[in-house]
Amino acid sequence: MKTVEVCLTPDLIQHFSLKGKMVIVVDIFRATSCIVTGLAYGVNAIYPVATVEECKAFKKKGMIIAGERGGEKVDGFDVGNSPYEYMNDEFQGKNIAVTTTNGTQAILKSIGADQILIGAFLNLRAMADYILDMNKNVIIHCAGWKGMVNIEDTLFAGALINEIKATHQPSGDSAFMAGDLYHFHHMDLLHAAHNSSHAKRLAAFGIEKDLDFCMEMSLYSIIPSYEEKKITLL
Amino acid sequence: MKTVEVCLTPDLIQHFSLKGKMVIVVDIFRATSCIVTGLAYGVNAIYPVATVEECKAFKKKGMIIAGERGGEKVDGFDVGNSPYEYMNDEFQGKNIAVTTTNGTQAILKSIGADQILIGAFLNLRAMADYILDMNKNVIIHCAGWKGMVNIEDTLFAGALINEIKATHQPSGDSAFMAGDLYHFHHMDLLHAAHNSSHAKRLAAFGIEKDLDFCMEMSLYSIIPSYEEKKITLL
Repeated sequence: MKTVEVCLTPDLIQHFSLKGKMVIVVDIFRATSCIVTGLAYGVNAIYPVATVEECKAFKKKGMIIAGERGGEKVDGFDVGNSPYEYMNDEFQGKNIAVTTTNGTQAILKSIGADQILIGAFLNLRAMADYILDMNKNVIIHCAGWKGMVNIEDTLFAGALINEIKATHQPSGDSAFMAGDLYHFHHMDLLHAAHNSSHAKRLAAFGIEKDLDFCMEMSLYSIIPSYEEKKITLL
Repeated sequence: MKTVEVCLTPDLIQHFSLKGKMVIVVDIFRATSCIVTGLAYGVNAIYPVATVEECKAFKKKGMIIAGERGGEKVDGFDVGNSPYEYMNDEFQGKNIAVTTTNGTQAILKSIGADQILIGAFLNLRAMADYILDMNKNVIIHCAGWKGMVNIEDTLFAGALINEIKATHQPSGDSAFMAGDLYHFHHMDLLHAAHNSSHAKRLAAFGIEKDLDFCMEMSLYSIIPSYEEKKITLL
């Protein structure tokens, strides 16, 4: 058996040994759900960056730029943070720079791992199949929210653990807790996710449709991979 | 309604605002279970310290010293880390210095709160009653293990949240997750706790009896409080 560990927020990643492992970064609301959707709809590459300023520098190089702050699209940006905005034929073959604080931090703090992959409920089954094929030890790295733990990323961790249980043994209490949380809520994940603090913060912006979409299971059979500053399809 | 938050490990406490709040520190296996037991059996005061060296300095001042490293009593110490060792008539009215890495860190990182109290399953009901009386916002601060999240402290957080739900609303996803974890396991807490990583580490030392005792509910109606470097009864 291989192992699967869960890091509940990037603020705890220093306790994990990344070397030789496959890290799955997840930020369900909404960064990694957007990335999966964009690549599924034909975007060539997505460049995750931490700040609005870095994103604007990419704009000067002719790139499409995307991102939100406080739940709303940044002024002057082409795209906000809704997966629906990524379903755009004009983006096919293009590169997009996206600023996302939690997601970017989780990706950058995963550097040192053998592989850094991008997970969401939208590509859950494909990710599980790929993990089964590769037969490596796995860390699920939840982006959380401003360094704190969140429900929706932890539910994804539990769902993925459940999908790979034939080959990967949970290791560490966080992994068992994520698995338990998923089993407690698996009959009604959508309801649990809507009760998360982040969903409640976002509800003020009328994006229930986005949240529902982010909780859709395995719509896309793709594996986004981060390497050399950009995310592309494997 | 007042609020109850949960900090899953001392490595995340910087995300919480302590001012004006009551912090309940918990380290079920075994520091806070020992502290509650000792004070229930008549110990006058317990001085939590981080290192073996600090403990030995207290010994020179004539104090009883307690602690373990790697699951075993430290050489030259009077007491290890078993609650049963604290059930000793000779300790009545005495002061004990105890070295516990996780528990001490959680206590020291709680400084700045209005009150710092010591919780365990052993005094769960008394703690809940006291919280209901005081009517303050609460943070449950889990000691975890070497900065990582653990199951048994999170289960305690969920159990306490359940006890005070009439007056305290969970705030933040960690609090909801702790509550969910407790509800998932509440019919068999002992089994869940025995499956924790820390229980498995300790099992090698044959202390199942200790672990079972630490999961006993509300044996003692006392509230230990940390103030000016020592823990005494309220």
